[in-house]
Amino acid sequence: MEILLAKSAGFCFGVKRAINLAFGTAKKRGKVFCLGPIIHNPQVVEKLKRSGVQEKESLEEIKEGTVILRSHGVSPEVMEEARSRGLEIVDATCPFVMRSQKFVRRLTEEGYFILIVGDRRHPEVQGIVGQAKGEVLVIDSPEGLKGLKRKERVGVVTQTTQTLSNLKEIMTQVLERAREVRVLNSICSATAKRQLESRKLAGKVDCMLVVGGYNSSNTNKLAEICQEVNPHTYHIEEARELSPSWFNGAKRVGLTGGASTPSWLIEQIVKKVRDFEKDRAGA
Amino acid sequence: MEILLAKSAGFCFGVKRAINLAFGTAKKRGKVFCLGPIIHNPQVVEKLKRSGVQEKESLEEIKEGTVILRSHGVSPEVMEEARSRGLEIVDATCPFVMRSQKFVRRLTEEGYFILIVGDRRHPEVQGIVGQAKGEVLVIDSPEGLKGLKRKERVGVVTQTTQTLSNLKEIMTQVLERAREVRVLNSICSATAKRQLESRKLAGKVDCMLVVGGYNSSNTNKLAEICQEVNPHTYHIEEARELSPSWFNGAKRVGLTGGASTPSWLIEQIVKKVRDFEKDRAGA
Repeated sequence: MEILLAKSAGFCFGVKRAINLAFGTAKKRGKVFCLGPIIHNPQVVEKLKRSGVQEKESLEEIKEGTVILRSHGVSPEVMEEARSRGLEIVDATCPFVMRSQKFVRRLTEEGYFILIVGDRRHPEVQGIVGQAKGEVLVIDSPEGLKGLKRKERVGVVTQTTQTLSNLKEIMTQVLERAREVRVLNSICSATAKRQLESRKLAGKVDCMLVVGGYNSSNTNKLAEICQEVNPHTYHIEEARELSPSWFNGAKRVGLTGGASTPSWLIEQIVKKVRDFEKDRAGA
Repeated sequence: MEILLAKSAGFCFGVKRAINLAFGTAKKRGKVFCLGPIIHNPQVVEKLKRSGVQEKESLEEIKEGTVILRSHGVSPEVMEEARSRGLEIVDATCPFVMRSQKFVRRLTEEGYFILIVGDRRHPEVQGIVGQAKGEVLVIDSPEGLKGLKRKERVGVVTQTTQTLSNLKEIMTQVLERAREVRVLNSICSATAKRQLESRKLAGKVDCMLVVGGYNSSNTNKLAEICQEVNPHTYHIEEARELSPSWFNGAKRVGLTGGASTPSWLIEQIVKKVRDFEKDRAGA
């Protein structure tokens, strides 16, 4: 059985940076907290917990010590509150997300109407929304523009995991409703590349495994894309979820992982699939 | 025979302003010149000439007096030369074109790559190109983007007579090649409205007349649009070009004119068509 791994699977630049910052901070003296999960991967969060970093849902639960702000970023209010509480801040916000935040902050000051293309419930989007002082609208499809009145100037940013085709469609409709449109194409190229490569791989294999957190938006998207081209697609978090029956008669198995999936999780899965093969040969 | 006139036919805001400025300046003492035709309509230019305004192709031909800069605008070099020659300047540049010029001037200073959607030979486009200090590209269709390398920041403006659908198509392709795109939708709404209304009218009549200068880009575009829906479309500049045979059996005649077509030219045409009718009734 051949196991084919997507080259672009696993940690992106922003996640790698956040993880390094978090494990580095864990070695510090005093209490270390993380506001929400550092990345959307329960296994990594669990490892970090064992290293001494406690996850807290809100700043109210943190009295003293160091707080790590996760890769998705936070709103200026949260940043301000962390400062006013006298906490030491380790900002692990993805630099690409930070660029979107700065863009919105500058444009909102210049009076632009802000349009964010993404999922309003996602922490990355919430952190960006928080930068806007004036009017702001969050949409995930062109339909969200319905009823929007004509604006003089519109500033557009996207959640890093959006697709370019969705942004394009929305842009053409915004052009009908604004004098000036200023758009930051903040789609992460690593995400786009990973989606493309995974789709290709899924089309070539008998069984496709997508590894990553069930709470990871980009991993879910990846599973959806692979499912479209290969019905034998399985989204799993860990090796123990694997079932030998998935590989019955399979000659080629494909493997990919989201931006928040660590390589050690992927390696564990490769090992387990190989073990199944050995069991079968020995049987 | 019913004669139906497009409501939006004739002078737009910018042309009206330029004409008023020009005829107002003609009354001044001293020599008055216009750099190129004030608008793209030979009959109006002729009238202006009889009022004492001489048309010159270049500033080198103008030694003293007042120079009127036409509705399409000029480059900063021309403006500077007019100043250095000690000429009095009457700037009849359309305010919408001036906005595009300012936009390009500001963005070029901030390091944007400038993309202009329009006809590179048109004076309006040439005046805008002149504002750009750095890299600039003029295209009239998405094909013009071929071979363009990825840019960090792109500023986009359009010639006022462009169509929104062309701008939309170009924008979606620019998004693939730039981190940030800033677009000024400088399409003149009067032009878009006139095109829409004229197309509708052409579809309802037996004979369609499009009145305006043969050198007028927006009138030519109008004639093209009407021709598409009605093969009995005639582009004329003056009443004397009309032929009675065009109206044989016609129950309804449609009339429209470009942004630079004066109402008195349209009225002369209506009168002549009525005269044909009377001749026929009398015959």
